[in-house]
Amino acid sequence: MKVSVIRKATFNAAHRLYRKDWSDEKNSAVFGLCANPNYHGHNYRLDVKIIGEIDPETGYVIDLKELNDIIQQEVMERFDHRNLNLDCEQFKNLNPTGENIVVVIYNILRTRIPAKYELQLKLWETEKNSFEYPA
Amino acid sequence: MKVSVIRKATFNAAHRLYRKDWSDEKNSAVFGLCANPNYHGHNYRLDVKIIGEIDPETGYVIDLKELNDIIQQEVMERFDHRNLNLDCEQFKNLNPTGENIVVVIYNILRTRIPAKYELQLKLWETEKNSFEYPA
Amino acid sequence: MKVSVIRKATFNAAHRLYRKDWSDEKNSAVFGLCANPNYHGHNYRLDVKIIGEIDPETGYVIDLKELNDIIQQEVMERFDHRNLNLDCEQFKNLNPTGENIVVVIYNILRTRIPAKYELQLKLWETEKNSFEYPA
Amino acid sequence: MKVSVIRKATFNAAHRLYRKDWSDEKNSAVFGLCANPNYHGHNYRLDVKIIGEIDPETGYVIDLKELNDIIQQEVMERFDHRNLNLDCEQFKNLNPTGENIVVVIYNILRTRIPAKYELQLKLWETEKNSFEYPA
Amino acid sequence: MKVSVIRKATFNAAHRLYRKDWSDEKNSAVFGLCANPNYHGHNYRLDVKIIGEIDPETGYVIDLKELNDIIQQEVMERFDHRNLNLDCEQFKNLNPTGENIVVVIYNILRTRIPAKYELQLKLWETEKNSFEYPA
Amino acid sequence: MKVSVIRKATFNAAHRLYRKDWSDEKNSAVFGLCANPNYHGHNYRLDVKIIGEIDPETGYVIDLKELNDIIQQEVMERFDHRNLNLDCEQFKNLNPTGENIVVVIYNILRTRIPAKYELQLKLWETEKNSFEYPA
Repeated sequence: MKVSVIRKATFNAAHRLYRKDWSDEKNSAVFGLCANPNYHGHNYRLDVKIIGEIDPETGYVIDLKELNDIIQQEVMERFDHRNLNLDCEQFKNLNPTGENIVVVIYNILRTRIPAKYELQLKLWETEKNSFEYPA
Repeated sequence: MKVSVIRKATFNAAHRLYRKDWSDEKNSAVFGLCANPNYHGHNYRLDVKIIGEIDPETGYVIDLKELNDIIQQEVMERFDHRNLNLDCEQFKNLNPTGENIVVVIYNILRTRIPAKYELQLKLWETEKNSFEYPA
Repeated sequence: MKVSVIRKATFNAAHRLYRKDWSDEKNSAVFGLCANPNYHGHNYRLDVKIIGEIDPETGYVIDLKELNDIIQQEVMERFDHRNLNLDCEQFKNLNPTGENIVVVIYNILRTRIPAKYELQLKLWETEKNSFEYPA
Repeated sequence: MKVSVIRKATFNAAHRLYRKDWSDEKNSAVFGLCANPNYHGHNYRLDVKIIGEIDPETGYVIDLKELNDIIQQEVMERFDHRNLNLDCEQFKNLNPTGENIVVVIYNILRTRIPAKYELQLKLWETEKNSFEYPA
Repeated sequence: MKVSVIRKATFNAAHRLYRKDWSDEKNSAVFGLCANPNYHGHNYRLDVKIIGEIDPETGYVIDLKELNDIIQQEVMERFDHRNLNLDCEQFKNLNPTGENIVVVIYNILRTRIPAKYELQLKLWETEKNSFEYPA
Repeated sequence: MKVSVIRKATFNAAHRLYRKDWSDEKNSAVFGLCANPNYHGHNYRLDVKIIGEIDPETGYVIDLKELNDIIQQEVMERFDHRNLNLDCEQFKNLNPTGENIVVVIYNILRTRIPAKYELQLKLWETEKNSFEYPA
């Protein structure tokens, strides 16, 4: 009797999309305004879904306070009010697209969420663009 | 050619999280503010998803008016403007966590939704916390 | 050059609408399901609007961290995860309608917000019903 | 390492639900107010989900600008500010229910989205009613 | 001590923007896609704001059930699932722009809301376009 | 018979809050995480409200296409996908707080909106923090 529990979080970050090994022209051609050298930013919204059995003693799949603590430590402290390209080692050599961000956060959270739980993430970069991993 | 049809409903209820066989101290330690003896409450949002074949005559998977009637009778009349712990037999001996509520509603609706349809539920307790069953 | 600054907060509480000096029948006739003796509850949303001059040194009308601290101390600690009728002295002899709640919170916050600022509140009891004070 | 990318679009259209081979009485009995002979309308919201591998060069599953261009050409130009029954050949002989609309749009987009990608759609007809295909 | 009470409603309607005394070309030039002869439609959202004194006996400015009944009778029964141009006498000779719709609804509701209350309306035609009367 | 017309827009930008004439320590003490030297960012939402008389010929207060064009030219082209501190002359010597941004945009739009209209703006920096000018 598996149930999903979803916790929402938000963080505000700057980023730009570009490759160091490409010319400015090529970066602009491929990434458009997102290649702006001085960065732009987003209010990212993240939904963290945990799938597991209900503990018959508590009625919880997972204690949402504990899940929230993990999200604070691993996601908020790393990425909130940061420049993803400059401040976050994960994106030193990885383009901070929505796709890459959601995979990076998954890999971080996966090490903190006990193995008995399945983990799925949805990340909104804007109201119109969102990303899920695993698909 | 299966299509999902989702109907949203909302109900407003009081509840508290606790176990009768635990001390007040243990209930507070585990359930925090949610153990408040005088209850607190939520605007619950429920998404009822029905999966089935499109009826070629009507173009409907299910008549949403009929689905809405079932939701009114089975969910709204039972849980809306109620105290889940005191007024609802389902939670007399079951902690009304989001996880348990979504499973209880699933089991109630499953008896009313014809077997040819798959049924999936998503329940929001707050803007930040939601629950899905089956996972 | 006055600017408004609005901070959103949410709290989850139980309540019932009734008058002690009325019969159960009259309470039900006037307040309907909201008179349920065992209470029901809501996710209340509150928008706190502060109107004032921009401080030319900081660019702030008010430091939103300080405003948030006041909201936490005066609104969240008092009303979040509480039963408004039983746990909150403000509603011992006052019906906790949306109208009365928004006025009560205004009177509490008004003592904490410096007099140079105007204060306006909007309170949502549900997605469909909201209340503003002053009107 | 498959990731989902979701792009939101909205279009505003008129429609009515009815069958030409049924009497007005039967259409009203089955489709209720939706059978109104002079049509009514909706702000449809569409979420287009594309599932695929991340391109290691760009960090994109799909270029959202290109996906948006396809949605504009195939969905917006066809259905936005149209009468689905009268202006759109797809619904000349097909009842424009949410179920049928989401399948029609899927079949149109499927021919434009490269085969290496999976495609899934969610369509909201109102805030309360939505539809997914494939289920 | 005046408080505002706001009740939300939604209705789904078809309409087109045009003047009978203008050519098709002029209608298209001025109203663009909104002039489509076969109509298009919207999910209109309406917020009805009532301003008045709190009744000390009930704690209500106005009974929201009674306000909702008025909205059902005067707005929903008239405009929901209708073609504003063809089915509604109010727009036989009046272009159903958001501006005109909000004024028409105001004039209808004003006759039903007791004079001791102030009345203000906000109407959303889409997520991006909304209208208020009085301004 | 004045009516308000509101048009929503969104733009994504990076910024930081700091004063050049303050030490890093003082900037951090006053502006907290918002002083991060490498910037962070937001999805800003802007509601542009225009108040005026309904044109009896068109039923419009203002043509929303023309209003949208002005917003695109004056707000989107200036601020979308930009670093407010580095790319926008308006904030070279002005702290890009929500308060200052909404006043700057007001002053820009005021020169483009005909004088017969009143203009009011609401700017959301996050889901929780918003700003209005004039207050």
